Amino acid sequence: MRVLILGASGMIGAKLARRLMDDGELAGQPITAMTLADLGAPPIPSGNVACDSRAADITEDGVAEALIATRPDVIFHLAAMVSGAAERDFEGGYRVNVDASRTLFEAVRMAHDADGYTPRLVFASSLAVYGAPLPDPVPDDQLRAPQTSYGTQKAIVELLLDDYTRRGFMDAIGLRLPTIVIRPGAPNAAASGFFSGILREPLAGQPSTLPVGRDVKHWLASPRAAVHFLVHAAGLDGAAVGPRRTMTMPGVATTVGGQIEALERAAGVEATALISEAPNAEITAIISTWPRAFAPDRATALGFVAETSVDDLITVYLEDDAPEGVGR
Amino acid sequence: MRVLILGASGMIGAKLARRLMDDGELAGQPITAMTLADLGAPPIPSGNVACDSRAADITEDGVAEALIATRPDVIFHLAAMVSGAAERDFEGGYRVNVDASRTLFEAVRMAHDADGYTPRLVFASSLAVYGAPLPDPVPDDQLRAPQTSYGTQKAIVELLLDDYTRRGFMDAIGLRLPTIVIRPGAPNAAASGFFSGILREPLAGQPSTLPVGRDVKHWLASPRAAVHFLVHAAGLDGAAVGPRRTMTMPGVATTVGGQIEALERAAGVEATALISEAPNAEITAIISTWPRAFAPDRATALGFVAETSVDDLITVYLEDDAPEGVGR
Repeated sequence: MRVLILGASGMIGAKLARRLMDDGELAGQPITAMTLADLGAPPIPSGNVACDSRAADITEDGVAEALIATRPDVIFHLAAMVSGAAERDFEGGYRVNVDASRTLFEAVRMAHDADGYTPRLVFASSLAVYGAPLPDPVPDDQLRAPQTSYGTQKAIVELLLDDYTRRGFMDAIGLRLPTIVIRPGAPNAAASGFFSGILREPLAGQPSTLPVGRDVKHWLASPRAAVHFLVHAAGLDGAAVGPRRTMTMPGVATTVGGQIEALERAAGVEATALISEAPNAEITAIISTWPRAFAPDRATALGFVAETSVDDLITVYLEDDAPEGVGR
Repeated sequence: MRVLILGASGMIGAKLARRLMDDGELAGQPITAMTLADLGAPPIPSGNVACDSRAADITEDGVAEALIATRPDVIFHLAAMVSGAAERDFEGGYRVNVDASRTLFEAVRMAHDADGYTPRLVFASSLAVYGAPLPDPVPDDQLRAPQTSYGTQKAIVELLLDDYTRRGFMDAIGLRLPTIVIRPGAPNAAASGFFSGILREPLAGQPSTLPVGRDVKHWLASPRAAVHFLVHAAGLDGAAVGPRRTMTMPGVATTVGGQIEALERAAGVEATALISEAPNAEITAIISTWPRAFAPDRATALGFVAETSVDDLITVYLEDDAPEGVGR
């Protein structure tokens, strides 16, 4: 079992590499070789799996072909330009999120034509493929009508996954990941950053700002759950997935108020007192167009599992990612 | 008002050129110049509108830029590789149906950035963006989950129409056309060809073969209605269309049995006796995955109108296209 992770420098990619190194196996088979790739060469986690690291830009000629020269059995395709950047940089977003993906898929197709190569490809898609108006919860067969360039790009790749799989060139599975909470590290400028920040900063005794109302509802899962989704997708029976290859992943549907209540249960009112409410019209407007909750029946039936409460999200953070000294 | 028709050699493109030449106006404004383009230079219909014809392959460098150099106010984008060909020729289908469209859209975007050019672009999409299982009728917000490469390619372009319009680079409208009945001319090899053939051939006293059961239901409109859809789309208020730029066009939902009854009303049992039933498993299987009827509420609200009976489809054929001597 050879594994390739594209986008292995990202938060989820690095955690996936760490887990595969620890497991030493994937889809019930020992991992004989693992390649980590990103724009800069990703760090190689310590462990016993033979692993190499490459700086690779698959928008450049020949790079995708070189990455699949060893015919990895499983390709995790997590490489992307993130939402805000893709909205600011129209050309760059299409180049990275559409053209690079298609270049990769075309390299796989050429290899398939040459020697029958048909890898399992696991793609990280996004809830941004959905745009308002949306029902609550959003069903699995909801129309993909994105309202951002990033969402458009992810929706295009989802269509390609179906067609390349139907044609037999690859065996692809796409996963629409929930918003990841609690993201480790420093606060960031993403519009969704506060969903992590209002938990992470108070847990560390730091102040945090809440830019939206407490009734805002969203769809969350932990970094650990995201890694589980990817690993589980690698081992799925493709026939059981059917022709629609991308699925919405399970998550916790919670309001911001529900997050704050869980924070109080975990760390007391001294923690929740660190949250200051400073409504921001711009962020509120962005968030208002996002889906609130999903009915991810297909993923659940196929064995994908997420946390069921914000309390669990906090526990996972404290176990996996919290800095020294933070925790109960 | 300058007009560009891409794909002007096709059956619908040629009829559109003919109508615009006759009307001399579009969207309430006189047409000052019309350009017809296709892989081979299209014939120029007789009339008083200044019109030129070009052999143009927009997959080639610089061709799209040259076509919009005069800044046409309305671009009809009908150029495509058809369904069967796109399924046989994977690379060709993506090159013509996706890459050429994107090349055109990028040329428009560059012109927009240069001088604010923002044309109305009318794109011919397809019901092939839908794949089974489908409700009957199919609502406007049905998930696009195509099961052919052609449908995938059309769905990708629909996503691009939304994003390029949202960004303000163009003012695009996509139309999912019904199956066109009665197509003039000779029988063809398309799986859908019999929907026209079982009417057209008996009307001319010729035999015709029915490869599916009489209970097969489908969504039909005349060539005249298709031209109306395109012309009407050119004049629509973009704001009234909203962010989802592609709409399913109205049509006649009829069974094959309903078609045969209308044929009998138009031309008697001597005509219907010319239809021989020869069930074909392959065609039956293909047709079984197609949608049967639609609830095109958005298009209807915006003033798109189609025939309401097969009798009307036959009347339109006899008026517009039937060879000399065919008719009541």
